[in-house]
Amino acid sequence: MTGTEPRALADAIRFLSIDAIERVGEGHPGTPLGAADSVTALFTRHLKFLAREPLWFDRDRFVESNGHGSMLLYSLLHLSGYEAIGLDDIKRFRELGSPCEGHPEYAPAHGIETTTGPLGQGIANAAGMALAEAYLNRWLGSDIIDHRTYALVGDGCLQEGVGQEVISLAGHLGLGKLTFLWDDNQMTDDGAIDLALSDDMAARFRLSHWHVQEVDGHDVEAVSAALLLAKSDPRPSMIRCTTVIGRGLPGVEGTRAAHSARIPASLSAAARAALNWPHPAFEIPEPIRAAWRAAGERDAPAFEAWTQRVAALPPERRRLLDRLREGRLPEGWEAPLRTFREEAAGKAQSGIALSGELVDRLAAAIPEMLSGAPDLEGATQHKRSLKAFTAADQGGRYVHYGIREHAMGAMMNGMAAHGGVVPVGVTYLVFSDYLRPTLRLAAMMGLPVPFVFSHDSVHIGRNGPTHQPVEYLASLRAIPNMLVLRPADAVEAAECWEIALQNRTGPSSLIFARQALPPVRRDGSGENRSAKGAYVLEEGSGPRRVTLLATGSEVALAVEARRRLEAEGVSTAIVSMPSWELFERQDAAYRRATLGPGTVRVGIEAAVRLGWDRYLGEEGGFVGMTGYGASGAEADLARHFGFTPERVVEEVRARL
Amino acid sequence: MTGTEPRALADAIRFLSIDAIERVGEGHPGTPLGAADSVTALFTRHLKFLAREPLWFDRDRFVESNGHGSMLLYSLLHLSGYEAIGLDDIKRFRELGSPCEGHPEYAPAHGIETTTGPLGQGIANAAGMALAEAYLNRWLGSDIIDHRTYALVGDGCLQEGVGQEVISLAGHLGLGKLTFLWDDNQMTDDGAIDLALSDDMAARFRLSHWHVQEVDGHDVEAVSAALLLAKSDPRPSMIRCTTVIGRGLPGVEGTRAAHSARIPASLSAAARAALNWPHPAFEIPEPIRAAWRAAGERDAPAFEAWTQRVAALPPERRRLLDRLREGRLPEGWEAPLRTFREEAAGKAQSGIALSGELVDRLAAAIPEMLSGAPDLEGATQHKRSLKAFTAADQGGRYVHYGIREHAMGAMMNGMAAHGGVVPVGVTYLVFSDYLRPTLRLAAMMGLPVPFVFSHDSVHIGRNGPTHQPVEYLASLRAIPNMLVLRPADAVEAAECWEIALQNRTGPSSLIFARQALPPVRRDGSGENRSAKGAYVLEEGSGPRRVTLLATGSEVALAVEARRRLEAEGVSTAIVSMPSWELFERQDAAYRRATLGPGTVRVGIEAAVRLGWDRYLGEEGGFVGMTGYGASGAEADLARHFGFTPERVVEEVRARL
Repeated sequence: MTGTEPRALADAIRFLSIDAIERVGEGHPGTPLGAADSVTALFTRHLKFLAREPLWFDRDRFVESNGHGSMLLYSLLHLSGYEAIGLDDIKRFRELGSPCEGHPEYAPAHGIETTTGPLGQGIANAAGMALAEAYLNRWLGSDIIDHRTYALVGDGCLQEGVGQEVISLAGHLGLGKLTFLWDDNQMTDDGAIDLALSDDMAARFRLSHWHVQEVDGHDVEAVSAALLLAKSDPRPSMIRCTTVIGRGLPGVEGTRAAHSARIPASLSAAARAALNWPHPAFEIPEPIRAAWRAAGERDAPAFEAWTQRVAALPPERRRLLDRLREGRLPEGWEAPLRTFREEAAGKAQSGIALSGELVDRLAAAIPEMLSGAPDLEGATQHKRSLKAFTAADQGGRYVHYGIREHAMGAMMNGMAAHGGVVPVGVTYLVFSDYLRPTLRLAAMMGLPVPFVFSHDSVHIGRNGPTHQPVEYLASLRAIPNMLVLRPADAVEAAECWEIALQNRTGPSSLIFARQALPPVRRDGSGENRSAKGAYVLEEGSGPRRVTLLATGSEVALAVEARRRLEAEGVSTAIVSMPSWELFERQDAAYRRATLGPGTVRVGIEAAVRLGWDRYLGEEGGFVGMTGYGASGAEADLARHFGFTPERVVEEVRARL
Repeated sequence: MTGTEPRALADAIRFLSIDAIERVGEGHPGTPLGAADSVTALFTRHLKFLAREPLWFDRDRFVESNGHGSMLLYSLLHLSGYEAIGLDDIKRFRELGSPCEGHPEYAPAHGIETTTGPLGQGIANAAGMALAEAYLNRWLGSDIIDHRTYALVGDGCLQEGVGQEVISLAGHLGLGKLTFLWDDNQMTDDGAIDLALSDDMAARFRLSHWHVQEVDGHDVEAVSAALLLAKSDPRPSMIRCTTVIGRGLPGVEGTRAAHSARIPASLSAAARAALNWPHPAFEIPEPIRAAWRAAGERDAPAFEAWTQRVAALPPERRRLLDRLREGRLPEGWEAPLRTFREEAAGKAQSGIALSGELVDRLAAAIPEMLSGAPDLEGATQHKRSLKAFTAADQGGRYVHYGIREHAMGAMMNGMAAHGGVVPVGVTYLVFSDYLRPTLRLAAMMGLPVPFVFSHDSVHIGRNGPTHQPVEYLASLRAIPNMLVLRPADAVEAAECWEIALQNRTGPSSLIFARQALPPVRRDGSGENRSAKGAYVLEEGSGPRRVTLLATGSEVALAVEARRRLEAEGVSTAIVSMPSWELFERQDAAYRRATLGPGTVRVGIEAAVRLGWDRYLGEEGGFVGMTGYGASGAEADLARHFGFTPERVVEEVRARL
């Protein structure tokens, strides 16, 4: 078979996958072989893309949510002409340094729209991309933004809670340009899917108001017809593609083993015979290559037309679009923060209300900012002047995510990966665990996503230990490339928001108290002191004998303890540490001078000690939590857990 | 109204709740007032319980999954006669030291079957309880174990991913004695539920094969009739109780504000007038008190009959039941571990295969051990000789959880809270984030749950960064009362499993490598050395100059580095640290002697440094990860990330 009929195009995917997996000795052939036909239908007939312009802003997005089948994606990208995925790269599949990694890693310039592998994340990212598109489409107009988002989905993505959340929410929000190709092969890693599932999944989608079609996933014409219908239906679409896992591997296809089978030479030879593919490893006949390259060039006219439309935009619109594409915030976006700092200095305010106020002001300056929360609008106050984003009004800028933290986080990642919008999501710090898999992925992908976490300690009081974080600061600080910011008062709150929005290479966790934060910075003008991560808030009155290090609401406690120590003649400095990560980036001299080696050091944070020893040294003290909180009045808890100036002074005295 | 008609009994719940919330000035009246009637139907007519015997092993379990409405539960427990919840305790609702905490905290002796508040957890716990019951029922017989599990469920629990996972899995596993009372008040914290949801939730349950009924939730007779039908249906049951949130608060009921309204005196007076409840605060008329007490005594005959059946058991069965109730493992359960230690010493084996082998042997000795994994049976090898637990055979001991990590964790918590079984669950360490909210709750509740996490580092190789944990050891160590165990080889693996099963006051995380662990302990006999948390594996040949501290797979690397250092005449000790938490429990002298103050210290762990400074001091070195992993061959990654003896020796030399 050397023609260019769809089956041959799909077989090119199959054999690139087989050859790469055979060569490296591992991989997951089940998906690339099973879903080759359905994605061939998508890529050769429907997906709007231009392989030589992978960053075309109005391209359709394609997400392979079942990321373990990554050779499918690499084969598609290579065949359709993405330069970054060369044949040599595919030959080095899963080797150190190859862009063809075990699971797809976010690299939009390579055609990889998001990192997938942890199941359920990809489809939720896709929903976020579709939401971003819907918003930008209403804002910028269909001439400029009008594209679809496709996701290839496996059973795992649909069983995961985050997948179920996203089915429900995408249907509710009417994300009509979102299409899932469900590779329904009735097989999971453990075996037949009915070991663990007996839901009618198509019905599951229908009851969340999706447009559902069911086709033979090996019939390219049928899949293509379904994709066409999906485009004309206003609902999000799910196309159930019934397939055989590992299709083309004799004796293995359709079995559990196909999921992650190794492919010995004998098996690839048998596949070549079975599929009538006589070509040597990694060789694709020229007619097939040409057909695939044509697919990758198919939308060149659309791209040219779009480019011309963009060129014809009035200069201001053009600059706006360029700014959004490049992820630059509008000129002067920091101004409201600077103004706020000066206005708010010296005033006590609820931490989370500060953030709500800041986001409200920022949203006025940054029209691409989209806020939202999982059913905590009242408690977190990040809606304010923003209209809701709904099925009926997709120009709204506040997403009611429902009680679906995980979907929120993963959709925010998808919005950021799409580009053009700045997603902000807020929930209680304890619920950050519900979306923790997405925090890791945002950090790994380097996505500029500001997450806001409120109600940050035992000081929330009566709601009790389930709602009182103690281990969360440590566990967020453990995530590489996560910038953790815990401001002490209104001035630091504005500084930290500035830092979070300036952080373009990774996510930020902005941690806010629920309770009022007494002012510790009386002057809000001048440089952003939080940008150093830690700084001397107050120096000792004489040669420094004691250094109190604190973050967030505990900085005010340090101020009170210092007052007492100074009154006793003990020269005491306070170091406010809104961000450990930023502090670690400062030079050694600054760090040393700030920490005051040789002084008595006591850390104060309403959280566990893990990690603090780095700053306290072997002799340092710590006032914090050793276990879970309790339910009670805030003042009672402060006494009970020792968040009192007396306790801090005691810790110091024991070391003087 | 001073009669004892059902409405009056429900109003007693309402006014205890109103009075308690009024007194403390906060709380969540929406649920206690809205669901008072449906739970009155349950407690006064159906729930099998005896208030004076809260730990009756064969009692029905009741979980209030929407834990924010905790006054509902405290009112029920108080009224039906649980001694631990006195009127004074209710008057101190949400005060420090009261058992009536902001959210219900696990206290079975008080009638609180599990901790709830984080949404979705309670219903998943309930499913775990029902699973435990089903297994014990098959094993011990219906004469001894035959009870039902009920959960009161709010919208939040059903929107959460973990809730959706559990609906799907409970239906699939045919947990027929599980009944949800869905308090369908069409209102969430943000407002009307259709802000974020438009699913037909009853249909959602039906497609997962639940028995679904829909009733007026304020009609006690209707709810009662539905509960009766639920008992006769073999499927799990969901009863949709249509209710008015905050029912009884004039001007507030049925509105968004009812969810967490404060209740000023004027509002409670209005409620008294509206519901014709003339009694002073916290006063319940004696006839109503008597009717409720009668409900709490209703099953006294059933309890007596059960007690007699138990007394009549053959001694061996009786001892078995006592053992299970008390959570004691069978006599001699450690023997297989000791044998294994001796057999396996000196042999290299895959870490996770070691755990699979150990669980297989332990399962033979511990018939109450139930294993399971989220679709990773092959990769984690914890099924082996165990039969699957299925709808058709609920005597099976291996649960195919499907791709639902979060449900697995929360169901394991429910099984442990139920008692009588030892749940074991295993997944990849990176996926522990998917069930992290349940790890916290297990630790907070002090549940003896062994979680097994495999594929613990970059050393898994080609699957790439999404599957390579780097921050997880730190983030698990941050959780108070979580025992983290990372064994270095076969001997430590057996020791750590012994420790995990001996740990009756909290969960354990057993962390295993996928790759082969070279032996570092050549002799598997003698004391359990891992029990000290850290110990000197090899002492320096002379006065110790260097201390290498390592965990898990990095201990073997330390052994190789030591060999080189000793060859150069540098006296070097190795400290193996399988568990930081256990090490912290040792006395200061032991800790000091082990860590070797004054020596050059270098930590080695294929993970981030966070937390290590405690053991390394200010001058110590660290060989670990500073960012995410990569996709490549294991040996290439080891070189790339510096997990080589050369690199360790360099770190040492730089400090000598």
